[in-house]
Amino acid sequence: MSQRHVGVTELALRDAHQSLFATRMAMEDMVDACEDIDRAGYWSVECWGGATFDSCIRFLNEDPWERLRTFRRLMPHSRLQMLLRGQNLLGYRHYEDSVVEKFVDKSAENGMDVFRVFDALNDPRNMARAMKAVVATGKHAQGTICYTISPLHTVEGYVRLAGQLLDMGAQSIALKDMAALLKPQPAYDIVKGIKDTYGDVQINVHCHSTTGVTLVSLMKAIEAGADVVDTAISSMSLGPGHNPTESLVEMLEGTDYTTDLDMERLTRIRDHFATVRPKYREFESATLVDTDIFSSQIPGGMLSNMESQLRAQGAGDRIREVMTEVPIVKKDAGYPPLVTPSSQIVGTQAVFNVLMGRYKVMTGEFADLMLGYYGECIGERNPEVVEIARKQAKKEPITERPADLLEPEWEKLEDDAAKLEGFNGSEEDVLTNAMFPGVAPKFFAHRNEGPKNVGKTAEQLAHEQAIADGSANAVRAPIRYTVSFGGQTHTVQVEPA
Amino acid sequence: MSQRHVGVTELALRDAHQSLFATRMAMEDMVDACEDIDRAGYWSVECWGGATFDSCIRFLNEDPWERLRTFRRLMPHSRLQMLLRGQNLLGYRHYEDSVVEKFVDKSAENGMDVFRVFDALNDPRNMARAMKAVVATGKHAQGTICYTISPLHTVEGYVRLAGQLLDMGAQSIALKDMAALLKPQPAYDIVKGIKDTYGDVQINVHCHSTTGVTLVSLMKAIEAGADVVDTAISSMSLGPGHNPTESLVEMLEGTDYTTDLDMERLTRIRDHFATVRPKYREFESATLVDTDIFSSQIPGGMLSNMESQLRAQGAGDRIREVMTEVPIVKKDAGYPPLVTPSSQIVGTQAVFNVLMGRYKVMTGEFADLMLGYYGECIGERNPEVVEIARKQAKKEPITERPADLLEPEWEKLEDDAAKLEGFNGSEEDVLTNAMFPGVAPKFFAHRNEGPKNVGKTAEQLAHEQAIADGSANAVRAPIRYTVSFGGQTHTVQVEPA
Repeated sequence: MSQRHVGVTELALRDAHQSLFATRMAMEDMVDACEDIDRAGYWSVECWGGATFDSCIRFLNEDPWERLRTFRRLMPHSRLQMLLRGQNLLGYRHYEDSVVEKFVDKSAENGMDVFRVFDALNDPRNMARAMKAVVATGKHAQGTICYTISPLHTVEGYVRLAGQLLDMGAQSIALKDMAALLKPQPAYDIVKGIKDTYGDVQINVHCHSTTGVTLVSLMKAIEAGADVVDTAISSMSLGPGHNPTESLVEMLEGTDYTTDLDMERLTRIRDHFATVRPKYREFESATLVDTDIFSSQIPGGMLSNMESQLRAQGAGDRIREVMTEVPIVKKDAGYPPLVTPSSQIVGTQAVFNVLMGRYKVMTGEFADLMLGYYGECIGERNPEVVEIARKQAKKEPITERPADLLEPEWEKLEDDAAKLEGFNGSEEDVLTNAMFPGVAPKFFAHRNEGPKNVGKTAEQLAHEQAIADGSANAVRAPIRYTVSFGGQTHTVQVEPA
Repeated sequence: MSQRHVGVTELALRDAHQSLFATRMAMEDMVDACEDIDRAGYWSVECWGGATFDSCIRFLNEDPWERLRTFRRLMPHSRLQMLLRGQNLLGYRHYEDSVVEKFVDKSAENGMDVFRVFDALNDPRNMARAMKAVVATGKHAQGTICYTISPLHTVEGYVRLAGQLLDMGAQSIALKDMAALLKPQPAYDIVKGIKDTYGDVQINVHCHSTTGVTLVSLMKAIEAGADVVDTAISSMSLGPGHNPTESLVEMLEGTDYTTDLDMERLTRIRDHFATVRPKYREFESATLVDTDIFSSQIPGGMLSNMESQLRAQGAGDRIREVMTEVPIVKKDAGYPPLVTPSSQIVGTQAVFNVLMGRYKVMTGEFADLMLGYYGECIGERNPEVVEIARKQAKKEPITERPADLLEPEWEKLEDDAAKLEGFNGSEEDVLTNAMFPGVAPKFFAHRNEGPKNVGKTAEQLAHEQAIADGSANAVRAPIRYTVSFGGQTHTVQVEPA
């Protein structure tokens, strides 16, 4: 029997630690695994983009461009892959096209191979320029479908969106399931639909594992023809993260499909991260599996955000009302997928609606969403709510691509960066400051202090374990102390009374 | 589209806590969930047998028969299900047939509906009498295939075994995957093979989740025609336990299959056990997912047993040698599935072989296994090793059913029990003492003190959380120490200044 080869994208170096412990993994905790990752036979290694850039400069005092160059040097045989939020790049606003082009060029130049380009609203116009820039560099442009569920989202719609991405020059299509909502049957249907409609286009499937069902979804996607699936090595898997790489490999044994990954190397990669993960335990959530999102349609992170907003207002008991309000706000906004930043925007407005009356007060971001400044959603926006947004924000609704409103800004961004202490004169630094103007100045000023590791040391972990075991909680055996008291020094022996 | 209904067996009340925290859950932590479990629409509720009986009398000072009667009373609409180790009942030796019959009768009388009968070696002769006894009571007799992997274990062999179980009167066949070794393709092939060969016989599939692949195996088993699958509510799932019930339900949406479980009740059951599980955290292993067993063929529990045996001999560094020895011992023994008790017997012998030379010293249990006293395995036993066993144990090999060697023993067991302090005169007590003669006397003597809960209280958990948060790391309340100083001893009280 001839088996079809299924590619695997390893997520340990990016989305896995982003999802499991808030993107806090220091580069020094990754370098020793790179040779095995490089040689294990992955289709690609996701290692940059998403929140890693932000986390590097905000928490780790690490130059993200240097991180990219290090990965390039340590993994010469691999396709390096990044997640890129279209016209937002890695930041939280729309950038003018020349900035998008510059970022893509510099990323490619520093070693990036595969650009997974997405937009939170699935608005193709927000992805087009980044896709074009990637194609121009000769690197791999991957167009992305953000998967969500709503009365308007259909298999046919997703297949149509795939066509639009292909028209932009996508060399592959990613089906991105950030909330672990993709069940086996729609996974099968969407992949099959794209293959049947557009021929043998490469399809990559990315699922989180939060709901516990998505390894099955990967199986059905593979049966439908998916070419590459995303997983994380087992010691960096599950919970709000992803399905375990080794489980995927074993799952396919005896089927018509195979991964050809090197199990010995996978074992070493696993053992490496098994020692790293406990260092970041304090950043981990306790969630093992959570299927609530299927009924609530509210991702876990969004729910905890809303809960803390309510508590801050002394209204922690009103979460049920807010959960009932979210679907209304989502519908009024034209059914955006709930993913950063739309999840925060919709969630915060739902909280406001419950606390102050529906749309009595609108956040600036929600008004922008209603007025088209984030792009188009699949559904029509509620005209009455658009009118309220117009009045409150004193802005007119737009129908054009949001970035079309922006003036060329590269020169200004260069000027801004040039004024900063510690700016190194590179275009990379200009881009860093452009995307994180609130954080980059401090990072530049302190960059020469070198990377910080916010994980715990082995000694701290051992001490905590001892406390958990109760053994460090009390004096058990005689301990000798030197005690200075009244100007004199004595040796004192202490033991349990 | 008409969907086929798939039944579900809920494991929260038995195998889930047995696998996750050493069968320690007290009855009082289960009763409040019973009404929802009873009404959620499960095919059956596994709640007794396995190690629950042992744990009840050894750790929880709880009468297991009373537990069964309580479940019966609290779940009047449900099929109650138990796991029964054939001729071993719930103990660790073979019992004479009249004891097997008595146990089955008493279990049925106290409320049991479905008897899942298995044998560690898959020897049908060790299951036949228990099956016959169940059929005689009019209750549901489920014959079990223990799934394992070896050069001799084939799909055809498992299908043949199913036929032998049906010939014994099995009303359904359980495919039991205690080590999470069952991959999707063999799951499909075995279920399909049984259905194709024997027509529409009911097939129940039981998988652990240790390796992370078995929810996919359940999906393929369902596609092949499986009628009932075993899961545990999500807050009692994963790791060495089982796949989450809610994930199974959601997984099937949009497919040709449905469970019809009541999601509202599942949510309440989940919430109940989400508060219970942390109480037993100290009994939990940290394993989230482990695919090592696919290459080592050694279940996780067996591996840690061997490691602690080696450490006790000051040979903790020789685990690799033992892991290489296990397949040799397993082959010599005729490829027994590695499950209690064969996993311990094979594992301990492998340790002995490494430490003292191959078969230089044989455990009594391993000699018995080699001489046929546990029954027959699928493969031929190595005649040279049988000969060594014969000499060392000074016993002849047998080919008959082991229980055929036993004299009628019920009257003796009655006499034994009657002598015990606290014996209540019931046949149930006779059976309890028959199965656990080393534990039952103490339990009878202390039974009237009532059940013990070995889980932590809410207060203890809060205190531990505070320690983990670092806040209890300092002296909070006065602590008294004995201090030796200048040759004199004083009692000193220390408290926050």
